[in-house]
Amino acid sequence: MADTVYDVTTWTGATVSPYVDIGAVINQIIADIKSKQTTQTTRPGAVVYIPPGHYDLLTRVVIDIGFLQIKGAGHGFLSEAIRDESPTGSWVETLPGASHIRVKNTDGHQEAFLVSRSGAPATVGRLNSIVFQDFCIDGVSSTKPYTPGNSKTGISFQSDNDAVRIEGMGFVYLEHAIIVKGADAPSITNNFIAECGSCIELTGASQVAKITNNFLISSWGGYSIFAENAEGPHISGNTVLWACNITLHNVNRASITSNKLLSNFPSMIALLNGSSENLIASNHFRRVHGDGTSNRFDDKFGLVHIAGSGNTVTSNQFSFSVPAQNITPAGADPTIVLVKSGDNNYLAANHITSNLPAKVVLDAATTATKVLYSATTAQLDAFTSSHSMVATP
Amino acid sequence: MADTVYDVTTWTGATVSPYVDIGAVINQIIADIKSKQTTQTTRPGAVVYIPPGHYDLLTRVVIDIGFLQIKGAGHGFLSEAIRDESPTGSWVETLPGASHIRVKNTDGHQEAFLVSRSGAPATVGRLNSIVFQDFCIDGVSSTKPYTPGNSKTGISFQSDNDAVRIEGMGFVYLEHAIIVKGADAPSITNNFIAECGSCIELTGASQVAKITNNFLISSWGGYSIFAENAEGPHISGNTVLWACNITLHNVNRASITSNKLLSNFPSMIALLNGSSENLIASNHFRRVHGDGTSNRFDDKFGLVHIAGSGNTVTSNQFSFSVPAQNITPAGADPTIVLVKSGDNNYLAANHITSNLPAKVVLDAATTATKVLYSATTAQLDAFTSSHSMVATP
Amino acid sequence: MADTVYDVTTWTGATVSPYVDIGAVINQIIADIKSKQTTQTTRPGAVVYIPPGHYDLLTRVVIDIGFLQIKGAGHGFLSEAIRDESPTGSWVETLPGASHIRVKNTDGHQEAFLVSRSGAPATVGRLNSIVFQDFCIDGVSSTKPYTPGNSKTGISFQSDNDAVRIEGMGFVYLEHAIIVKGADAPSITNNFIAECGSCIELTGASQVAKITNNFLISSWGGYSIFAENAEGPHISGNTVLWACNITLHNVNRASITSNKLLSNFPSMIALLNGSSENLIASNHFRRVHGDGTSNRFDDKFGLVHIAGSGNTVTSNQFSFSVPAQNITPAGADPTIVLVKSGDNNYLAANHITSNLPAKVVLDAATTATKVLYSATTAQLDAFTSSHSMVATP
Repeated sequence: MADTVYDVTTWTGATVSPYVDIGAVINQIIADIKSKQTTQTTRPGAVVYIPPGHYDLLTRVVIDIGFLQIKGAGHGFLSEAIRDESPTGSWVETLPGASHIRVKNTDGHQEAFLVSRSGAPATVGRLNSIVFQDFCIDGVSSTKPYTPGNSKTGISFQSDNDAVRIEGMGFVYLEHAIIVKGADAPSITNNFIAECGSCIELTGASQVAKITNNFLISSWGGYSIFAENAEGPHISGNTVLWACNITLHNVNRASITSNKLLSNFPSMIALLNGSSENLIASNHFRRVHGDGTSNRFDDKFGLVHIAGSGNTVTSNQFSFSVPAQNITPAGADPTIVLVKSGDNNYLAANHITSNLPAKVVLDAATTATKVLYSATTAQLDAFTSSHSMVATP
Repeated sequence: MADTVYDVTTWTGATVSPYVDIGAVINQIIADIKSKQTTQTTRPGAVVYIPPGHYDLLTRVVIDIGFLQIKGAGHGFLSEAIRDESPTGSWVETLPGASHIRVKNTDGHQEAFLVSRSGAPATVGRLNSIVFQDFCIDGVSSTKPYTPGNSKTGISFQSDNDAVRIEGMGFVYLEHAIIVKGADAPSITNNFIAECGSCIELTGASQVAKITNNFLISSWGGYSIFAENAEGPHISGNTVLWACNITLHNVNRASITSNKLLSNFPSMIALLNGSSENLIASNHFRRVHGDGTSNRFDDKFGLVHIAGSGNTVTSNQFSFSVPAQNITPAGADPTIVLVKSGDNNYLAANHITSNLPAKVVLDAATTATKVLYSATTAQLDAFTSSHSMVATP
Repeated sequence: MADTVYDVTTWTGATVSPYVDIGAVINQIIADIKSKQTTQTTRPGAVVYIPPGHYDLLTRVVIDIGFLQIKGAGHGFLSEAIRDESPTGSWVETLPGASHIRVKNTDGHQEAFLVSRSGAPATVGRLNSIVFQDFCIDGVSSTKPYTPGNSKTGISFQSDNDAVRIEGMGFVYLEHAIIVKGADAPSITNNFIAECGSCIELTGASQVAKITNNFLISSWGGYSIFAENAEGPHISGNTVLWACNITLHNVNRASITSNKLLSNFPSMIALLNGSSENLIASNHFRRVHGDGTSNRFDDKFGLVHIAGSGNTVTSNQFSFSVPAQNITPAGADPTIVLVKSGDNNYLAANHITSNLPAKVVLDAATTATKVLYSATTAQLDAFTSSHSMVATP
């Protein structure tokens, strides 16, 4: 093998067993890579391979080199929530598996993996094409809704980055699975993120993040996807469960299409703080009553909440089924889409099924909303005359 | 390498060559894993690597451990149908390749891989995060329509499972490529399944299966995708060919979006037995006349057939081109969408092109169907007055 | 390891270092494979593994065997355009990385990888299931718009092929990243193609190409995706940037759905030469003014240009924002959708936002176009009475 391929279980440079502290081992590998790759044109990075096994992580990994690929042999998900709610005496296994890292920092830090490199201007320090692939990051213990919770973070990017990939990973029992600050064109695809407070958080500003083909399973305390000040994120082909909550603050030109969305709570997609010209198309929204309680949002908030202009909601199905006694405020008609503020939002060809008199609501501050074959006359509550309505017959 | 990584060609514990019986070798590997992983908290599973080569499988593999990853180096598809219909004297190669397993059971079983573990309640036995990746399962010989056929099955899950993955695999000349019973959140993505009787069958009950980005190529005898009693499957981004047949029995809240669908036969998507609140959006349906004959469905059955309530069909293109003499029953107008039964089904913004006078048909039992810009007046055959029509001008 | 697994850095059969000429090494590996795999039924192919490192390629690789998998450890993208436009004195690294191949042919050829096998009929020579995965092909130096440019091509398939895969690859600074002639069911997924003249070109004729989940980033000289004489390509879930240009010549039944599209220029999707029955649904189109100048198309050409019949444009968002002084011809109203020719094209439920009086234009030659809730009355310029309009209110 080339000296750019490391196996955490066989690398002879480590001063500690990877089973005792895989974080320390990977940091030592990174130091070794840096000692060998010393010029601007001789830094291709390396592969760090994690074979199947249970590894403890006591020391945070700090990645400050580009092109590093940390790779295991499977996301190894096992539902720790079901385990913790069930008698497990007769279970065959009670831990996640595959390439399984237990986050048990004793170093005073919260993250398993911190990606950060200092330097200005941003291009100097910008980290390129780092890859996390096919292993499991496990927060070990937690309780619903996981946030506030054990304060643990799986992967946190805290300096500018380009073209990074998080693929085939498993995350479980973390308060924050993935945080990416300052992202340009990240690809987050085919992951299994479950029983975490928040799944994916794009902080700072980001461009054209691609979030596709994932399972994102979170509870009612955090976010499935959170983004702020983002341009053009693409959220497509995901299955987002139990408390689907996609929250966008000042995010423009997002494309949220072909997702399967399920929640026990309102606010499945919220376009906030002037988020504009976003597309929400061909998604399936399912709202039921189930596990957990939360007063974060009431049923007037909307499954889709829009506070911005020029947004498009087309070709979606909304399937609402909540017992009347579980609606808050009591006796209210639940809101499917709330246009809270903004001009020229466009709803067309959406289909609502509901066990209750569900509503599309246009608040008084809104102007020129179009509601085309997206609600019956009875389903529209317009608190402004500045709108156009073509009722579903 | 860690002792959790096995290569079928170099593992010294096997009593038979993997080229002679890879099934026996993998069973022996599994036994070895079980002998080493003996407690509830020391069962991370293992990787079984299959390098490129032609391997025979005489003995069914039985997987009853979690987190196992069986991985090869490519799906290795070669069209055995074209091979069998052509003179191959001058061909360079006549077999599939890459990590290529020939299913030739001599053990009386039908499956190449059976995943099953006993135990009750289900959580005890539930198998987590098993991975099949990047190899080829080849049934060796078959004839169209492949079912009933050689009775061979590629992978069969027969006990409850969570978060399993089938990715990058190739399947050819099997009666059943993939059967998954009792699935919770499986990911079936980026596979090449071709010249099989049925591609993917979700039996028993399942939750939130994700079937994305696959080639699914089947003939007229079986199913591209079959599901029964499923909640919320997500079928997106697939290319489904020659006899696209997605059949859902008592399946609710499916999302079938952004697929490219082609068939030589009716029943491209059938929502049966009360399947309700499913979304069919942004798909391209192409129906032609070509290879094969079948009397399973006639042209009154519909490319889309709906027997359930609250379903949504939006933003699809239907492109129908079949010579009049090939329509059955003779002289009939072919049906694009048949709403057979159910209440409140919703069709909007669909576009039909056809060489014949194609129809959207609402049967007498149906109520409150909406047909909005999805058919011209001449294209609607409504056998009930309980519907709403806004004709495509 | 089996003898079907090669590592370019450790294989002892090479007569040159892979760092000096990886092309020569891979050609020698292919010769070695051919010397060992000598009959129609003993040709499973092999894996060629490229560990992280910087490799020069002086000699074109010629692949004339099936099932070959060339695989690295990451796409290794680093923006060479930003590098070349910035002072890099303090940068940590200035080259792409991971498994990084610098294309520096000294053999008189233009391609890094040529896939071609002679033989007739096509089935004899058809190459199956070749895989390029997870490495970086770098053209080393270039200037915008990259075409005409350094004349370098990353991967070129020039004979008939079936079920090939290009996945997880990086391409940068190439005039042509990927050319596939005579493709049947190729899968091009999860790649990062940037700063190339053209990203994906499907030449000759092709069937059911699947192009999904990619970043495609090109400049104004070439194409994001070009296809000619293609049946049923499926373009879904991609993020296509800076000069999104998807050009289809005589392409029928394409499905272009759920893509995020951004361009500084007109002609984001062009259906030319009678391209018919294509579906464009649930895409987000963003048009801005920015980097680069081009007179290839003016703003009357349309973001979507249709010269064909029976096409469908539904459920898309068009977000146009270009300063008036940057519109060509000066003073023109920019065209969002131009139906140039053809019969029975169908636009429904599209939403246009624009800083200027944008238009949907139906040329005089067109017949029976439907424009349903896709433009206000003021936004339609119809030069034919043969159309139907339901204006967005």
